[in-house]
Amino acid sequence: MSVTAPRGFRAAGVTAGLKKSGRPDLALVVNDGPLDVAAGVFTTNRVQAAPVLWSRTAVGDGRACAVILNSGGANACTGSGGFLDSHTTAEHVAAVLGVGAADVLVCSTGLIGERLAMPVLLLGVDAAAAALGVTGGPDAAAAICTTDTVPKETVQRGEGWSIGGMAKGAGMLNPALATMLVVLTTDAVLDAGMADAALRHAVEHSFNRLDSDGCMSTNDTVLLLASGAAGASPDAAVFGAALDAACADLARQLIADAEGASHDIAVTVRGATTEGAALAVARAVTSSNLFKAAVFGNDPNWGRVLAAVGTVPVEVAAYEADELDVFMNGVQVCRAGGVGEDRSAVDLSGREVSVVVDLHAGGAEATVWTNDLTHDYVHENSAYST
Amino acid sequence: MSVTAPRGFRAAGVTAGLKKSGRPDLALVVNDGPLDVAAGVFTTNRVQAAPVLWSRTAVGDGRACAVILNSGGANACTGSGGFLDSHTTAEHVAAVLGVGAADVLVCSTGLIGERLAMPVLLLGVDAAAAALGVTGGPDAAAAICTTDTVPKETVQRGEGWSIGGMAKGAGMLNPALATMLVVLTTDAVLDAGMADAALRHAVEHSFNRLDSDGCMSTNDTVLLLASGAAGASPDAAVFGAALDAACADLARQLIADAEGASHDIAVTVRGATTEGAALAVARAVTSSNLFKAAVFGNDPNWGRVLAAVGTVPVEVAAYEADELDVFMNGVQVCRAGGVGEDRSAVDLSGREVSVVVDLHAGGAEATVWTNDLTHDYVHENSAYST
Repeated sequence: MSVTAPRGFRAAGVTAGLKKSGRPDLALVVNDGPLDVAAGVFTTNRVQAAPVLWSRTAVGDGRACAVILNSGGANACTGSGGFLDSHTTAEHVAAVLGVGAADVLVCSTGLIGERLAMPVLLLGVDAAAAALGVTGGPDAAAAICTTDTVPKETVQRGEGWSIGGMAKGAGMLNPALATMLVVLTTDAVLDAGMADAALRHAVEHSFNRLDSDGCMSTNDTVLLLASGAAGASPDAAVFGAALDAACADLARQLIADAEGASHDIAVTVRGATTEGAALAVARAVTSSNLFKAAVFGNDPNWGRVLAAVGTVPVEVAAYEADELDVFMNGVQVCRAGGVGEDRSAVDLSGREVSVVVDLHAGGAEATVWTNDLTHDYVHENSAYST
Repeated sequence: MSVTAPRGFRAAGVTAGLKKSGRPDLALVVNDGPLDVAAGVFTTNRVQAAPVLWSRTAVGDGRACAVILNSGGANACTGSGGFLDSHTTAEHVAAVLGVGAADVLVCSTGLIGERLAMPVLLLGVDAAAAALGVTGGPDAAAAICTTDTVPKETVQRGEGWSIGGMAKGAGMLNPALATMLVVLTTDAVLDAGMADAALRHAVEHSFNRLDSDGCMSTNDTVLLLASGAAGASPDAAVFGAALDAACADLARQLIADAEGASHDIAVTVRGATTEGAALAVARAVTSSNLFKAAVFGNDPNWGRVLAAVGTVPVEVAAYEADELDVFMNGVQVCRAGGVGEDRSAVDLSGREVSVVVDLHAGGAEATVWTNDLTHDYVHENSAYST
């Protein structure tokens, strides 16, 4: 049920005709209230797509009652005309729903640098509005897919309230093909401040700890809408934990469906002086093409892990190179910066791979997920726009 | 003739038996003087191979009279035993040549995390010493190759003096498979300060502006040896320009032979406030897997260039996203952050690709070279150690 699992929401997913493939490409999520609380987290890329510029402003007052999302075009690097297209889309959705345009958020995903086919999109809005329903979540989740092979949905239940969510893409700071888009809904009673704080925490500990291919999208957007329809007011910590779980669930699904991947790799750095230091070292490993290509080849090449760890400046993460330990799928292949157990004892034939680096410098740790670098990744990303 | 083109040098390249392939794997370069001036630049990776630790110290006094280089094993992440191996190698070379061990520099390249076969290597040293000759440069250049398909050599001539050089690998800050090793020789009369300053400038403007795959080796080493045998004392600026040219020539050869590459890509950023800002933006583009995979597919996907440019923090490089221009092979595919000329006008079928990003923020510029991301890159790097 994803975004329509909580009360107070309707959704739809339709085929507007933006995609050449003829697959669904337009989703609409409506919050029927009584509350219209909303929060958003957006890409930190300085080149921001038109819908990001629009939605960031629109959600700035902590309120929104609808989200329109299209695949089949990112509307990024499209200049003032592209921004007008996002504005026009919001105006049209607002007119159909009888709400204000400033309460309509817009998300787009697809190829950068091309204008959207606006007549097609606006007709699609009409069709989506006509198809809105309280069981429309799965249709919406399917309509936002691009290279995703399966829709990503989650439901988390609290005492008398719930959270629903849908996602597409493969990362937040570092998404794959075009973009990660996430819409979360809840029927809990929240105020805007609580929604914003909970969303930022959940994103930081889930989507911001994915690194599929090191690239950062112009369109990444994570939105939370609260209808208050359950009438229940959960404690902030309780709601936060549920939202964390929802985002973690979606993040794990994104990694599992990353383009061309054959391994999901969890890189955990422990023994760091701070969580930030642990994260920096983990990200150095997850961004190493050499390491990721080795995992694709089922090769426990821990030297490439150490070479990546060594690129982190000392002012970012304290450690001594001759104290580093590395475990791959539980086998300590590197001990004190040198050769440990026989690398042939590491079995990388499964989908999931665990790499643990112990810095022996402190008590903090963090985990970042990534994928291996495969022939299929190169294929998908060399043949995308042409 | 490479390293034996200048007077005062002998070299050899032999097959010690470190490589399973049976190809040459041990090179020796000897400076017969009268000067024994030397300078070195090493990887900034905090995980440093044993030969880097040894050579950095050994060249610290600005003097060296021999360099021993092995392929077939990086001697990195090998602990105190590995350091002893580098020390033993230097001692053995010193004994054979009748010099001090502290004047012998050591370089290694190959798989990380395995000890060298020392008896094999030391017998190879004897063979290399016996084979030393004033025409041995090409043999030495061949013996340091790993996945290189051709040796890399250069000769630059001044008035009565010359510079010779050899290289293996594919980058400096960000080399490919294992390591970049470079040895430069000259018969010009230099002092240690002049040699060090010239080498640092030349490396910064050549090898440090290559980024093949974003990874940084544990073994990168660039050495300059001066024999003074020409008796000529060039002006520092004149010598520096020739050394710059030697390094630029070798760097270009490294990119042209990078693992699995089908395109050599020059990313030039102009209109920057400083050269550092231009470099940071160029490196953001050259490290984008999405951009590099698109070039492999002959796809002028300029949106991926802009998405990469947008990841550079504002405090690192000033620009306005809606003022960015992008040219690919001379075609202005992006104008003022939006759609420019038709991307289909860009022909990427040739080996060399030019990407120019104009930030319109100042007068500084810089160029970084990289390669495309190909099936063969993934293949070579997933099948290396196994």
